Amino acid sequence: MIPTRLIPPTFDPGSVWLVGAGPGDPGLLTLHAAHALSQANIVLHDALVSDDVLSLAPQAILEPVGKRAAGQRTKQLRINQRLVQLAKQGLKVVRLKGGDPLVFGRGGEEAIALVAAGIPFRIVPGISAGIGGTAAAGIPITHRGLARSVAFATGHDSSGALADIDWASLARGAEVLVLYMAQRQIGAIADRLIAAGRAPEEPVALVANATGPNQTVVVTTLANAGRDVAVSNAPLSIVIGPVVALRQLLAQWQQTEPMKTLRLNVRNA
Amino acid sequence: MIPTRLIPPTFDPGSVWLVGAGPGDPGLLTLHAAHALSQANIVLHDALVSDDVLSLAPQAILEPVGKRAAGQRTKQLRINQRLVQLAKQGLKVVRLKGGDPLVFGRGGEEAIALVAAGIPFRIVPGISAGIGGTAAAGIPITHRGLARSVAFATGHDSSGALADIDWASLARGAEVLVLYMAQRQIGAIADRLIAAGRAPEEPVALVANATGPNQTVVVTTLANAGRDVAVSNAPLSIVIGPVVALRQLLAQWQQTEPMKTLRLNVRNA
Repeated sequence: MIPTRLIPPTFDPGSVWLVGAGPGDPGLLTLHAAHALSQANIVLHDALVSDDVLSLAPQAILEPVGKRAAGQRTKQLRINQRLVQLAKQGLKVVRLKGGDPLVFGRGGEEAIALVAAGIPFRIVPGISAGIGGTAAAGIPITHRGLARSVAFATGHDSSGALADIDWASLARGAEVLVLYMAQRQIGAIADRLIAAGRAPEEPVALVANATGPNQTVVVTTLANAGRDVAVSNAPLSIVIGPVVALRQLLAQWQQTEPMKTLRLNVRNA
Repeated sequence: MIPTRLIPPTFDPGSVWLVGAGPGDPGLLTLHAAHALSQANIVLHDALVSDDVLSLAPQAILEPVGKRAAGQRTKQLRINQRLVQLAKQGLKVVRLKGGDPLVFGRGGEEAIALVAAGIPFRIVPGISAGIGGTAAAGIPITHRGLARSVAFATGHDSSGALADIDWASLARGAEVLVLYMAQRQIGAIADRLIAAGRAPEEPVALVANATGPNQTVVVTTLANAGRDVAVSNAPLSIVIGPVVALRQLLAQWQQTEPMKTLRLNVRNA
């Protein structure tokens, strides 16, 4: 093969890039995301995006706009307005979100606000925790013979209450369920899944801080998941399904060391 | 912020990295994936991985092992054995797959074969077409207010027949469906979804060659999807749900130019 050099698309002043930061490990940023960070004038970021990732935008102003999980009122409208305002100032604006911007990430709302204001934008997908975090936990979510369908679902509605999903149908239609933001609802969800015919002893994985240095994985059962979940502010992915059992085989052999960052002082830089 | 340099984890000789190449645009490779390609001695790749992506491994031997969609017998066992054989020779082996290695990608089977042979491995997640390809088509698959659940499902079983999924339950439990490898089955699937109560006029997007220079998006309805699908060997993602309607708003404003590669001749290199 002839060696090549990559030519990234131009990040135009006055535009907004909605960028997924992935689950935590900076090595799971895409090349587009790393490029966007290196070019940005300002980065509006969620509270949960790590300093390691943010350090890839040393030239940019960093503006935290994070809102933590259920219960707190969101400030989405204000974020939308801020994105428009900064773009109108002619800045290169990155809106940086954990995981993927469109998978339970409100990126669609931001994009619509930008369209309404006539601001050009780009969506830079990220590795969603339900895919990259579960992989780091040694769980192949669609393992052949065990799963032909996987559902990603959010645990709660905007009010913080249990999401108004037909859980009984999802229990029967999706062989694997991956739940986002469901720490407080997993007990109620598990009850509904069991009532719909899922086995109480079905394995469940509770994956916290996936792909980061503090990753923890607790394997429990559907019957015990509500009891065993540790409610914290760390992003948690919950995997329900027979594929969880493969973790025992894979996790002890797989390498998961994240990409590290080395701080440069002025002399080294 | 203090500038930093990224330190990738070591790619040990005698190990195998199962790497997701993303949907097509080389800019959607992760930093881990680009690093793995730059270090590999040999890359076993699917037929659908683009030359642009492969050109990022100019030092490596490229070995195509792709198998095209339904109907053809797979050679998974032979691929597994080849990975073990190459790792035992002390090589740095990349197994490069379109999308994500664990989302309908057989990466779990390869990982199990490596465990059985005592070969260290790493899973490098990729942007799955159901997330990154749909984003490039301007479809936010979990747009707030329209979707609290999205199911990813494969259209066919290993025999090529319609996947043995409880489609009626999935129709009721998942507000959005993203189908992989379902070109030949979409008519039959749509019939089942409509019989279970989904509206015949519900919008459906047929996204081919997502994120690449030849991306095409056809928007149709559930009733007409089977008629409108173009059966080809190009990877196709099918999105079913009200979120498809947002494409009309977003797609004309969003930037989707892929990262390009510039071939270097010896003088420039």
